[in-house]
Amino acid sequence: MEIVGKSHRRYDALYKARGKAVYVDDLYFPHMLYAGVKRSPYPHARIKKIDPGGLKGKREIFFVSYEDIPGANKLPIIFDDWPVLAPGVARFAGEAVVLVAAPKKEMIPELLDEIKVEYEPLEAVFDPELSMKSKVRLFGDNNVFASYYYDTGDIEKGFREADVIVEDTYRTPYQEHAYIETQGMVAVPTPDGGMEIYGSMQCPFYVQNAVAEVLGIGMNKVRVVQMETGGAFGGKEDMPSQVASQAALLAYVSGRPVKLIYSREEDILSMSKRHPGIIKSRVGAKKDGTLIAVDTTYILDSGAYATLSPSVLWRGTVHACGPYRVPNVRVRSYAVATNKVPCGAYRGFGAPQVIFAMESQMDRIAEELGMDPAELREKNLVREGDTMPFGHKLTGSVGALETLRKAVEKSGWKVKRKTYGKEEGFKKRGIGLATIFYGVGLGAAGKHLDRSGAYIQITEDGKVAFAVGTTEMGQGMKTALAQIVAEELGFRYEDVAILPVDTSRVPDSGPTVASRATVMSGNALRNAAKPLRETLIKIASELLSVPPEKIELKLGDVYVEGSPKMPLNKLIKEAYRRREHMASQGYYVAPHTSWENKEGGEAYMVYAWATKIAEVEVDLLTGEVKVLRITSAHDVGKAVNPTLVEGQIEGGAVQGMGYALMEDILTEGGKIINNNFSTYIIPTIVDAPEIIPIIVEREFDKGPYGAKGFAEQPLMGIAPAITNAIYHATGVRIKELPATPERVFEELLKAGKVELWKEK
Amino acid sequence: MEIVGKSHRRYDALYKARGKAVYVDDLYFPHMLYAGVKRSPYPHARIKKIDPGGLKGKREIFFVSYEDIPGANKLPIIFDDWPVLAPGVARFAGEAVVLVAAPKKEMIPELLDEIKVEYEPLEAVFDPELSMKSKVRLFGDNNVFASYYYDTGDIEKGFREADVIVEDTYRTPYQEHAYIETQGMVAVPTPDGGMEIYGSMQCPFYVQNAVAEVLGIGMNKVRVVQMETGGAFGGKEDMPSQVASQAALLAYVSGRPVKLIYSREEDILSMSKRHPGIIKSRVGAKKDGTLIAVDTTYILDSGAYATLSPSVLWRGTVHACGPYRVPNVRVRSYAVATNKVPCGAYRGFGAPQVIFAMESQMDRIAEELGMDPAELREKNLVREGDTMPFGHKLTGSVGALETLRKAVEKSGWKVKRKTYGKEEGFKKRGIGLATIFYGVGLGAAGKHLDRSGAYIQITEDGKVAFAVGTTEMGQGMKTALAQIVAEELGFRYEDVAILPVDTSRVPDSGPTVASRATVMSGNALRNAAKPLRETLIKIASELLSVPPEKIELKLGDVYVEGSPKMPLNKLIKEAYRRREHMASQGYYVAPHTSWENKEGGEAYMVYAWATKIAEVEVDLLTGEVKVLRITSAHDVGKAVNPTLVEGQIEGGAVQGMGYALMEDILTEGGKIINNNFSTYIIPTIVDAPEIIPIIVEREFDKGPYGAKGFAEQPLMGIAPAITNAIYHATGVRIKELPATPERVFEELLKAGKVELWKEK
Repeated sequence: MEIVGKSHRRYDALYKARGKAVYVDDLYFPHMLYAGVKRSPYPHARIKKIDPGGLKGKREIFFVSYEDIPGANKLPIIFDDWPVLAPGVARFAGEAVVLVAAPKKEMIPELLDEIKVEYEPLEAVFDPELSMKSKVRLFGDNNVFASYYYDTGDIEKGFREADVIVEDTYRTPYQEHAYIETQGMVAVPTPDGGMEIYGSMQCPFYVQNAVAEVLGIGMNKVRVVQMETGGAFGGKEDMPSQVASQAALLAYVSGRPVKLIYSREEDILSMSKRHPGIIKSRVGAKKDGTLIAVDTTYILDSGAYATLSPSVLWRGTVHACGPYRVPNVRVRSYAVATNKVPCGAYRGFGAPQVIFAMESQMDRIAEELGMDPAELREKNLVREGDTMPFGHKLTGSVGALETLRKAVEKSGWKVKRKTYGKEEGFKKRGIGLATIFYGVGLGAAGKHLDRSGAYIQITEDGKVAFAVGTTEMGQGMKTALAQIVAEELGFRYEDVAILPVDTSRVPDSGPTVASRATVMSGNALRNAAKPLRETLIKIASELLSVPPEKIELKLGDVYVEGSPKMPLNKLIKEAYRRREHMASQGYYVAPHTSWENKEGGEAYMVYAWATKIAEVEVDLLTGEVKVLRITSAHDVGKAVNPTLVEGQIEGGAVQGMGYALMEDILTEGGKIINNNFSTYIIPTIVDAPEIIPIIVEREFDKGPYGAKGFAEQPLMGIAPAITNAIYHATGVRIKELPATPERVFEELLKAGKVELWKEK
Repeated sequence: MEIVGKSHRRYDALYKARGKAVYVDDLYFPHMLYAGVKRSPYPHARIKKIDPGGLKGKREIFFVSYEDIPGANKLPIIFDDWPVLAPGVARFAGEAVVLVAAPKKEMIPELLDEIKVEYEPLEAVFDPELSMKSKVRLFGDNNVFASYYYDTGDIEKGFREADVIVEDTYRTPYQEHAYIETQGMVAVPTPDGGMEIYGSMQCPFYVQNAVAEVLGIGMNKVRVVQMETGGAFGGKEDMPSQVASQAALLAYVSGRPVKLIYSREEDILSMSKRHPGIIKSRVGAKKDGTLIAVDTTYILDSGAYATLSPSVLWRGTVHACGPYRVPNVRVRSYAVATNKVPCGAYRGFGAPQVIFAMESQMDRIAEELGMDPAELREKNLVREGDTMPFGHKLTGSVGALETLRKAVEKSGWKVKRKTYGKEEGFKKRGIGLATIFYGVGLGAAGKHLDRSGAYIQITEDGKVAFAVGTTEMGQGMKTALAQIVAEELGFRYEDVAILPVDTSRVPDSGPTVASRATVMSGNALRNAAKPLRETLIKIASELLSVPPEKIELKLGDVYVEGSPKMPLNKLIKEAYRRREHMASQGYYVAPHTSWENKEGGEAYMVYAWATKIAEVEVDLLTGEVKVLRITSAHDVGKAVNPTLVEGQIEGGAVQGMGYALMEDILTEGGKIINNNFSTYIIPTIVDAPEIIPIIVEREFDKGPYGAKGFAEQPLMGIAPAITNAIYHATGVRIKELPATPERVFEELLKAGKVELWKEK
């Protein structure tokens, strides 16, 4: 391979660094209006009256309430239950109630004030466990949006046979996506009665579907264009459908372009987060460390609407027992409605919560048995040929053990495990690890959406452009795909251009989530490239009088038996002269997956594996945890661009560290009170530890050049690696995230581990 | 057929009527600059110095002269000879010399004034016949850009055998396209170093190529989007490449979006026109009217640069002898450089000039023989199986005779031919006819460009959108193609949406000229529809347990043996559930054509045929000619939308009438002096005669549903039909167009035909 596997410069690096990238808020259209959203201050309330006051009929001022929606007041996603505007009842504090648009942005706050909404507050429920038994009715009989389960072996027998059993409840918090760019959309009415949407998003086809439904028009008349997207992390999966629909409604009633950009405050207040989780875990093992039984109950606090909760829950369910051979398993999971902000997708998608529990439990087992935690994993990690606890027999691309071994070796685990924690003074070091897996793609629960299109166009001057339906949100997809296109067709990397992501360029390609873009769009591009390459090679074969199988296209030249014989652009000129079709649509459908509650199944097309080792220093006087070093080893199938893989590993490590130690959404009466970055603290560059990325390549036979999805895993497992390291440093186990100084200090105090300052 | 052949409402009718269409001048981009062009006042001059005066280095003011062009200063078309900016020498009055951009449009005239250009005037040549012998060197040895010829039979023998010979020289004038919307472009630099172009144009792929060449960047980074285009008529074939390149140069140097909209004055001054022509014609016939010899010398005044002249000349050459069987033919043609505005494409593309000559000559032959002009045509018009004078044996779709017979019948020709001209008083009526043919598509001279792409995308809600690479400029292409897509896939017409024309959506689809869009894009769409229809029918066959061949998709339903069994949208939902590929790229390559000078060849894929009958009233006191009625019969292969065909017939008739009677570009020292619509007169609604359209359908076996190209023919032949009618009314033959009152009066005077007002 000439291009794939090399660290080409990011396609978007230079122009982003130079400030040339165009974000949605950089857009302006003639006669554009600016929009704002009036939101419910109550977590649960009947809307008795909406009174626009003196603004009604005012020139160039437009309102929309739920009664003005021409189509459906529901965003299509799974249950299609989240309305664009509260339909008579608001179910969380921050829910959108009225939309307003005006010619100047500065007018919006005052206009929002002038609209009076009369509420009748209703009883609300905030705790998912209480909600299941509450009289407050948010969904069905018991407020449970979704529930999954599976059983493997005989769980009771498993525990009977266990020599050691650990049992505990773990709690994980909200995590705010904290994308640099808040949600934003511009809706532009088209002459033919349609709507163009420009915005920051992961999933343009979701937005297309939503806007068409909400406006009651054909999807063929809704064209959605992704602008440069300043971070997403799952927070721009389903949410942009809300924002786009709101902008589109105002554009529809006004007949003018409408821009709606959320402030940071309303974004944190009203947009989805990582689900808080409660994980009750019981794990049994034999004396030699062999896992014999895992029983997990997983409860997600979904908030007011289901949105993606069923999917998030399903993924968490599948991932509940970690990457281990476990003969007896019982998993029960519940996504429960509460009167809080709806939760949704976030890097890891329901897995980080259960991983925190399982990897904490693994360390407890190791401790009980007096084993090295790495050894315990070594013993239990799945190998090729093994069957996952949920019933998927692994036939290839299983690099779990290799990530463990490499991370252990590279981190100096064995020595540090012995030496750390024995420091003089009040700062104690510890080293901890976690091993994870991640099902790539939408899996069986989302299989109907798991297909992608791609388009390639070769220009007469010997260059190429392509379009896909998955999006760049900072993860490096553009670059990886440009490398794949260059490799497939023999272009130099710099001769590849990328077309805007636009729902009308390729068919519905599913969401850009679940670490699926490289595999899905990569394969769709390979399929698109195939007829083009065949045409070019056929012509080259004629021109050079060489059989086609001896011809290779690479790096801008036509090669015969290893020597360049002709520039590629000359060959392309000839193809144009012959009027060959130099454009192609490719399509790719994800491989087989299956799932049944109880039995489980072949949940995902392939799995990625990783081991995280964290080294921390805990200040016994303050409870502050400093992360010194993270070693993160990932089986990515094939690193299309190693530098980008390393970048992902680094970014994910820091984001996982935020989840472990800092990030802490606080609510009061169900309402988020720390909705800005002065009170919701995320890690910055000064918090970033040394990060040692390790790339393991166990090729995925159905992936492009062996690649499998990767973008989410870097965050996953960081939290338990850190809390396991804290335990190693201090002997204190953190069972609820984040491990803020306050919480750690409290645990240290309880355990009598605080050393008071002693003057020498 | 359910949709094709029916007069569905124009796709763009409502939104154009409501003022919702978005033209280039409606666009605004943040930080956009406005541009202007400083032009040479001299028809031929050396540029000694360009001095930006006090503007140099001024904030937010940008200049470009030919020395600042990063790529090639030549627009790629045929010889690629027209520079974007005069490269040291200006060769016509109005040629672009310096570009300027500023933040406000109002600043531009003053900025243009402030730039001082020093010229050294050079000797200039304005007459093409003089130019061929002039010392002024504009091109090669003799200023002849291009020359074609062919010989059939033995021309000398032909004339020896002729019983009657007519010989004359005919002259035709410039014709200004007079599109409602002047030329305009916006260039927007893209973050990745490319350029997006939005504008009014016929040929986005020409613009893409030009901008890439001029900026020296890859075509894969130049994306050209056609905006609603307010008329074109050939004037937006090559010219928009100029305008776009100018805007792009300023966008390139400034790094900002740049809008350049031509004023009417500079548009008429500097943009291409229909070539003035000189046609020397000698025609011989036997006593019974059989044509025996045609000798034509055709000279086009090309102006300063070749641009499309070779193509225009070639088409005129092919069309020189009309739609007649002529055994002995000699055609010689020349496109000659002069120091005037370059001429280019205009509806008819070099044919209207020779048609004027040939159809005048036909009437002269008829007169010499005492035959009815219609009978003379009847005798000589080609039939299926005949060979055209340039060597193309006609195998089908030859409706020439039928158009003649229907027009003659419908117009009441026979009676009027006898009664007209015998009126009392000073107003005399006449009726005249002309029969024409037109080679559809680019033909052998442009065959390398004669292919088109198309894209169809079916959305999950059971609707469809498509994209093509040919453009709507008012001719009705969108509607015709939407009907074809609906017909092919069984959609209702209203469920079809059309995507923007954008060079990155389909491969280079050639220019939108030569009446080729319906055939080329129509066939490309049919090819795109094929796999989609097959997939849908396969699924329907399974769902309905009926063999595929019994299933029809039409009007939004799935039919089995004539009865609707299932809504199409339900079938499409199922296809989506199965993850079928619901998008497709189609491609179509034009059928075989060939050409060799001397022998001629199979010049075009198919020919369209028409007969025009004009009825006029000539005022003997003023020379004013009033057109009373035009009967226009066209063999269109198949009228995809009969109302649109009739609309074209009407528009073309009026435009042809302008060419015949009114439109008269005046030059002084080579410079156009009547460059606005107060002095360049075109017909208005009050001049429009009654127009009787007749549709003849001799299906073209390779056309979509039998359709063949049509948009240009309505203008063609109108002029000679009118001048033949003038002759019928007055006995005066107009050999030079336009037949303005002044010219007609002068001819009447010369011929002693003026009746002075006699008081009774």
